[in-house]
Amino acid sequence: MGSVFGRVFRVTTFGESHGGAVGCVVEGCPAGLKLDLEGIQRDLDRRRPGQSDLYSPRQESDRVQVLSGLEGDVTLGTPICLLVMNKDAKPEAYEKIRTMYRPSHADYTYQAKYGIQASSGGGRASARETIGRVAAGAVARQLLARDLGAEVIAWVEQVGACLIPETALCEAQICHADVAADDSRCPDPETAKEMRALIESARDAGDSLGGAVRCLVRGLPAGLGEPVFDKLEALLGHACMSIPAVKGFEVGSGFSGITMRGSEHNDAFVPGEDGGVRTRTNFSGGIQGGISNGEPIRLRVGFKPTSTIFKEQDTVTRDGQAIRHAMSGRHDPCVVPRAVPVVEAMVALVLADAWLLQRASRGSL
Amino acid sequence: MGSVFGRVFRVTTFGESHGGAVGCVVEGCPAGLKLDLEGIQRDLDRRRPGQSDLYSPRQESDRVQVLSGLEGDVTLGTPICLLVMNKDAKPEAYEKIRTMYRPSHADYTYQAKYGIQASSGGGRASARETIGRVAAGAVARQLLARDLGAEVIAWVEQVGACLIPETALCEAQICHADVAADDSRCPDPETAKEMRALIESARDAGDSLGGAVRCLVRGLPAGLGEPVFDKLEALLGHACMSIPAVKGFEVGSGFSGITMRGSEHNDAFVPGEDGGVRTRTNFSGGIQGGISNGEPIRLRVGFKPTSTIFKEQDTVTRDGQAIRHAMSGRHDPCVVPRAVPVVEAMVALVLADAWLLQRASRGSL
Amino acid sequence: MGSVFGRVFRVTTFGESHGGAVGCVVEGCPAGLKLDLEGIQRDLDRRRPGQSDLYSPRQESDRVQVLSGLEGDVTLGTPICLLVMNKDAKPEAYEKIRTMYRPSHADYTYQAKYGIQASSGGGRASARETIGRVAAGAVARQLLARDLGAEVIAWVEQVGACLIPETALCEAQICHADVAADDSRCPDPETAKEMRALIESARDAGDSLGGAVRCLVRGLPAGLGEPVFDKLEALLGHACMSIPAVKGFEVGSGFSGITMRGSEHNDAFVPGEDGGVRTRTNFSGGIQGGISNGEPIRLRVGFKPTSTIFKEQDTVTRDGQAIRHAMSGRHDPCVVPRAVPVVEAMVALVLADAWLLQRASRGSL
Amino acid sequence: MGSVFGRVFRVTTFGESHGGAVGCVVEGCPAGLKLDLEGIQRDLDRRRPGQSDLYSPRQESDRVQVLSGLEGDVTLGTPICLLVMNKDAKPEAYEKIRTMYRPSHADYTYQAKYGIQASSGGGRASARETIGRVAAGAVARQLLARDLGAEVIAWVEQVGACLIPETALCEAQICHADVAADDSRCPDPETAKEMRALIESARDAGDSLGGAVRCLVRGLPAGLGEPVFDKLEALLGHACMSIPAVKGFEVGSGFSGITMRGSEHNDAFVPGEDGGVRTRTNFSGGIQGGISNGEPIRLRVGFKPTSTIFKEQDTVTRDGQAIRHAMSGRHDPCVVPRAVPVVEAMVALVLADAWLLQRASRGSL
Repeated sequence: MGSVFGRVFRVTTFGESHGGAVGCVVEGCPAGLKLDLEGIQRDLDRRRPGQSDLYSPRQESDRVQVLSGLEGDVTLGTPICLLVMNKDAKPEAYEKIRTMYRPSHADYTYQAKYGIQASSGGGRASARETIGRVAAGAVARQLLARDLGAEVIAWVEQVGACLIPETALCEAQICHADVAADDSRCPDPETAKEMRALIESARDAGDSLGGAVRCLVRGLPAGLGEPVFDKLEALLGHACMSIPAVKGFEVGSGFSGITMRGSEHNDAFVPGEDGGVRTRTNFSGGIQGGISNGEPIRLRVGFKPTSTIFKEQDTVTRDGQAIRHAMSGRHDPCVVPRAVPVVEAMVALVLADAWLLQRASRGSL
Repeated sequence: MGSVFGRVFRVTTFGESHGGAVGCVVEGCPAGLKLDLEGIQRDLDRRRPGQSDLYSPRQESDRVQVLSGLEGDVTLGTPICLLVMNKDAKPEAYEKIRTMYRPSHADYTYQAKYGIQASSGGGRASARETIGRVAAGAVARQLLARDLGAEVIAWVEQVGACLIPETALCEAQICHADVAADDSRCPDPETAKEMRALIESARDAGDSLGGAVRCLVRGLPAGLGEPVFDKLEALLGHACMSIPAVKGFEVGSGFSGITMRGSEHNDAFVPGEDGGVRTRTNFSGGIQGGISNGEPIRLRVGFKPTSTIFKEQDTVTRDGQAIRHAMSGRHDPCVVPRAVPVVEAMVALVLADAWLLQRASRGSL
Repeated sequence: MGSVFGRVFRVTTFGESHGGAVGCVVEGCPAGLKLDLEGIQRDLDRRRPGQSDLYSPRQESDRVQVLSGLEGDVTLGTPICLLVMNKDAKPEAYEKIRTMYRPSHADYTYQAKYGIQASSGGGRASARETIGRVAAGAVARQLLARDLGAEVIAWVEQVGACLIPETALCEAQICHADVAADDSRCPDPETAKEMRALIESARDAGDSLGGAVRCLVRGLPAGLGEPVFDKLEALLGHACMSIPAVKGFEVGSGFSGITMRGSEHNDAFVPGEDGGVRTRTNFSGGIQGGISNGEPIRLRVGFKPTSTIFKEQDTVTRDGQAIRHAMSGRHDPCVVPRAVPVVEAMVALVLADAWLLQRASRGSL
Repeated sequence: MGSVFGRVFRVTTFGESHGGAVGCVVEGCPAGLKLDLEGIQRDLDRRRPGQSDLYSPRQESDRVQVLSGLEGDVTLGTPICLLVMNKDAKPEAYEKIRTMYRPSHADYTYQAKYGIQASSGGGRASARETIGRVAAGAVARQLLARDLGAEVIAWVEQVGACLIPETALCEAQICHADVAADDSRCPDPETAKEMRALIESARDAGDSLGGAVRCLVRGLPAGLGEPVFDKLEALLGHACMSIPAVKGFEVGSGFSGITMRGSEHNDAFVPGEDGGVRTRTNFSGGIQGGISNGEPIRLRVGFKPTSTIFKEQDTVTRDGQAIRHAMSGRHDPCVVPRAVPVVEAMVALVLADAWLLQRASRGSL
């Protein structure tokens, strides 16, 4: 269980890190959507390792193949299978660590859960699993753009203690090119420079760093989401908390709302254009009562430092002996830059699903 | 949609705030569980309004009736319907505000979503909806206790800027009686006193406060949770973010992990008793790779200040006119104390479901 | 598990035969549907026992209460809880049979599955469970009528060997009043008379009879249903086979199609009105490739003879001893007349769900 | 929607008839199951076209590739992706028929549903879609054999009017080799001969035939299945009615039970070995109250004659003109022999899922 996400727009992912392939099946995508296949590839390229010296040096082209669900580049309404072959799999590199539980990895818990484990690398716990998410999310993103004119954009807001200064950015104007401009995926050039230096220094020290991704959704109409258990923030929280290495999620004011008074935090309604309604502030993060209110969705995702480090650590072997061990291999000193398209993908999957469910109940917005 | 939670241990809730009744149907609870019905009632009593001058003065006895699924007090394996009648419903109190959208409430978004709305109070967006969650969660909690010896406990850690000092508590020893001792639901008496004063002052000013709930799960074995989309932290995030007024969720180190190095954050494994494995620290919050590792699950939930305040605010009428309005009625100046059993319920629902799914795949742990 | 049906229009039923109440929660019904509450009651009245000497003499008024989901008589889009209290429950009547497994009842299998069983009557295996289905199906039926102008109608086609002669009816013109005219629910008066005599004679002999229900759906547009696993006939089969005592299901030509040649069985397409397409015959039963083609849906459901008979039978006690026993109590000598509204309800539930899913993917038809 | 089946043991299939590949992802298969990969291939070989002159001459080797979920031949508990490339796809063969709706095919309904259609062949409506079912079913079958010692076996019981005589077979002793012995998949050699002649004559006449498949499950313990909507017969009905060309389904006595009296139809309980309970007859078909009772599951599936025939037929072009047309191409004059492994696969999928759900609720049987 656990490899399926969504209710109507639904993705199933499969594939181990060092197996034959990784991929996904997207079910429930409406027929007649003309897909920009190069757009899907572009999203995959943004999460690809080996493209920067800030990232894992694993060399993968990650070319996506479409096995089903399309006639030319138009969706048939049937399941879309998207496949990426593993090229640079090196199961043998894991032989040495097969005998022990790597600290803060999934080795021990997978063993406890399954009683067996992929002998090489993280199996499904590897970040390579996110390829299926990004491919499926790219389809969702294109559906949202066509049907609603909505756009999902994320960037790196923080690496370690290095944070974009509050006044440095005009969030409303950040575009994908701004984010792509630097390998750190930080759209503020000054902060980006600092982040790069920080990541390089951690890498050189054999250590790792955490960080935070900010995500905005622009152009989403009011009325998406469900009440009670499937509030939009609950599904977005589910989606983002499921990304490897994520430890925290907040929407709108988030944890900073705790110290505000209701009279400060409430978003006053004001008349909008065309008889609509807007809010003066957006502490709600575009969601009220679990349902979108037409303001930008605004959320933040916190990542822990990468578990794989090259410093010596205490751990325990599979037969219960305490040892000290230093790992070697190919890993990201900070996963946050490569997580940017993953956050966007998960957010797009939630919203595409919410959109179709809303259409089920109302026919349209 | 949105009123169903869980995959195998699954709850459906129903009921509007000022309708006839609220309740839930619990499906998938194993047969043969001897239920402590008074325990269910006790959990409901902890979220009941009117029991303290810190809480909403709405007078409800919230007595639970069991309509199905039990033979005496033993579960039959069939759906358990738990019902609470609404006694102190006052739909007429809402007549005045029916003409406008209350700021940061769900009035506007429900209108946008459904094109219609319960004319009185929040309908399903009301905190009264959480009765069904607490009743179902009480069943889940009893299942976890019987099958796994696991215990879920939550408390108020923060109200506004008032936070339990880091050294004030020994988390491992906090028990439900400690939390129940003060209406603030803060187990540290000094901080509790400050919180009470803070809530009273906000109430007297017609304003409201946010806060944070800390939750621990003790005694959970390793191996619960699924990889990829249904990681334990993802389901817990889904569950907690779906509680009314929640804006943030974190597990283990949470957002504070961002500024740590991997070499600090990794939880070193050490040999445990009986050949088992423990971790020296618990920045992972009891979950690695989405699966429990046998350490306590540790999470935090952030609540915004209550939207209902009695100060005058800007808003818009349903026909689009800007107005200023001050609400009146019966509400909590701070929902956090009454949210404690709701957080516990949602966490218990996630874990009962994860436990049954794990049993599906392995037969046992 | 097992008490939830549907994907978007989804019903959960609850309640034991001799417990406090039976009922359902309908989730996913669109907001703004003006419900004919008396129509729901009328559907329940059609399945009520005690209304004819052909039926079980259990005296139940089966008055439905709406606990949630409506504002006046208009749906809010939130869960609709419909409740019927058990009035004539007689758990004590079952004391004698608690010690043995009644042949072809669920006593033995429930014991095997759950290790425990409702001590009185069939619990969830009782036909009383179908009240929740009929109540939910009534809502579905009204949605189909409003949105699509579609109508679901069923009748008794066969009781024992007594079958409506092939030329006796013009199926296209049968209306609900025709079916209601006789307690046998057979719209052909001649056959109805024979069926009555047959049922009375079985009743007097302490024995029971099987039968078949025919169901038509008129006015359903083309395009509902999904390919592969959720073909319309698969969901209809699931729905109808889940009704107590059903042993067979067929759609269109059904089993009689086996002996036809393709050249006879294929439904030739002919140009329809307004540029549409019709078929000359309807061996497909209104479904092709799992999807409705605009012709009437036509299906048949086969019921075994009621398991409860008053003749002496061989059976085994719960402690494994062979005995002979004759039951007493209140039961239907033939369930088929009272099953007519149940078949309609299940068919309506499938179609309402298919309609909403189709709207999710296309916005409209 | 529609390409996912199961709740815990869950399969998603994908792939169009003349696209790149067909396949499936199996989710929820327990870890540690040693798979007989050649057994999966053997099941696929039994449904392969081109292996007999009774079958479609399309030449496909249908070699299955495992892309994920295994370590060697042992399941990891993660999604198993099984892929079969399409080798003999001939989209160009469909050019001529793209302009019209083939009678009793899915051309018209797919157009109505999706507004677009795979331009070649049946797309997802093609019987080629069943490859994913057979591959997934083979995994389910091996799980049932290992965990429960249960065996699923099906055979052709009827082709057109040619039916195995009632006394010709001892059902309890039929084995897979008996079924494999003749291309007709009829285990009675006399009847098989007649069936072959019948199919050849239909083929030579450019016409087609229907038939029936009988399926038995031996060795299934009591206690599998759920009450109410997910009764075992309901899920089996869903599963079998979803197979292309199926028009009817019955379990146990099926439609023949209609004409029996309760006193004949009730299966008397008798003491079994080891303190267990057996039934003297099996009109229940191994299921009572929706739950297995330990007797063999016994069901029958009715198939219509293949829609593709080579005789001239009336139909309508996509622009609404009446025409007469005779198809050409590669098709089965009778699908029933090749449907035998498909029926087995669907039955195995239902039972594997029911088994895991039962384990969720009881830990074991």
